[in-house]
Amino acid sequence: MVCVVRSKAHLCIRADAAGLRGGPGRTVAKQAMATPQKIFFATGNKKKLEEVAAILASGAALPFTVEAAKLDLPELQGEPEEISKEKCRIAAREVGGAVMVEDTSLCFNAMHGLPGPYIKWFLEKLGHDGLNRMLAGFDDKTAYAQCIFAYTPGPDHEPITFVGRTEGRIVPARGPSDFGWDPVFQPDGFDLTYAEMEKEAKNKISHRYRSLDKLRNHLLANAEQQQQQQQQQQ
Amino acid sequence: MVCVVRSKAHLCIRADAAGLRGGPGRTVAKQAMATPQKIFFATGNKKKLEEVAAILASGAALPFTVEAAKLDLPELQGEPEEISKEKCRIAAREVGGAVMVEDTSLCFNAMHGLPGPYIKWFLEKLGHDGLNRMLAGFDDKTAYAQCIFAYTPGPDHEPITFVGRTEGRIVPARGPSDFGWDPVFQPDGFDLTYAEMEKEAKNKISHRYRSLDKLRNHLLANAEQQQQQQQQQQ
Repeated sequence: MVCVVRSKAHLCIRADAAGLRGGPGRTVAKQAMATPQKIFFATGNKKKLEEVAAILASGAALPFTVEAAKLDLPELQGEPEEISKEKCRIAAREVGGAVMVEDTSLCFNAMHGLPGPYIKWFLEKLGHDGLNRMLAGFDDKTAYAQCIFAYTPGPDHEPITFVGRTEGRIVPARGPSDFGWDPVFQPDGFDLTYAEMEKEAKNKISHRYRSLDKLRNHLLANAEQQQQQQQQQQ
Repeated sequence: MVCVVRSKAHLCIRADAAGLRGGPGRTVAKQAMATPQKIFFATGNKKKLEEVAAILASGAALPFTVEAAKLDLPELQGEPEEISKEKCRIAAREVGGAVMVEDTSLCFNAMHGLPGPYIKWFLEKLGHDGLNRMLAGFDDKTAYAQCIFAYTPGPDHEPITFVGRTEGRIVPARGPSDFGWDPVFQPDGFDLTYAEMEKEAKNKISHRYRSLDKLRNHLLANAEQQQQQQQQQQ
């Protein structure tokens, strides 16, 4: 079961393990016991929340609960992975437990990865047309959409990052303009911009999907390892 | 006397009041007593330190001491004044007293003020040529160099900002290339880029000068007010 719960203090996604799991077999139950974790996801963005929830729900059962918390995290400058790690450290201190944070960049190859983590401001000030114009002086219009999930099991652990990239190019805006820079990004192998794609199709190839999928695999592998260790101890 | 002192923990500028003051008259001495302040300047950049020290030393006597402290402040995203204020709040908590912080932006009018506070990254990744190329798609090549000093008398006070702007335009690089984006910024009314100008001439019209001059005037006016209040109480 994936549901979105709202309160004044929190936006919450629960990818409820019991709901997602198949049968009530003993092994599965043990796996769930091995990682009785609640992982916070730091976000206040409803669209991101929905996208992440959709990706989480589409795969294997999750032996942990994800709960989104709206934290007042600083927006930092720097290299994307460093930004994510530092945000994750701060978030972990705030929630006092396991947490994941997510950062998205739109990176122009001609500009060596910029605007990157600052894309929000460039979109806000320049609009879709301006993003194209910034590249007028460069032959290379290729770009990549990048998502980084940083995860830490707690405030005393160094965060791990999971980088998801989707290669593509910057094009004049096409499609609905209600979700950021989606109208100007056309992923490789498609004639459609992100904005023109069906949500389900986009989720399958999106930078966010690729990053989140790596994180989920890491968490599931960890859970399995814990389970094996428990079995060996018995 | 302005001297630059280095230690492992600090880069220090002392604009020593006694050294800068003229005669040892009673009024001056009282003024100095009225603001026995040590104001920290948060910076670790030697070039900035030297430039600020030169501007501080060129004007009226300072009834306070400025000491530069190398603090590990976060580089934040956002609107330039908000960035400065937040950095100043954090710096004031760290030093536990009066502090000033400085932020510089290079703002392209065609890009509604961007790259602005992110200019450091754009310069690093794109170089001088790339900064020009970013504007190839825009007719308007005008820009302004902006410096903001944010000052607070202590951690319990809201910071005040002092914005200094120098209008100009982005041009192909000319002059020594050892100080940031100076070679591509040509201030209005000059045929020289910042990099080509004599340091003294640049200091007189620079964004940093204009901002720092406003801050100094504020501090001096405050000192005078305190002095008058003391005299009235006597």
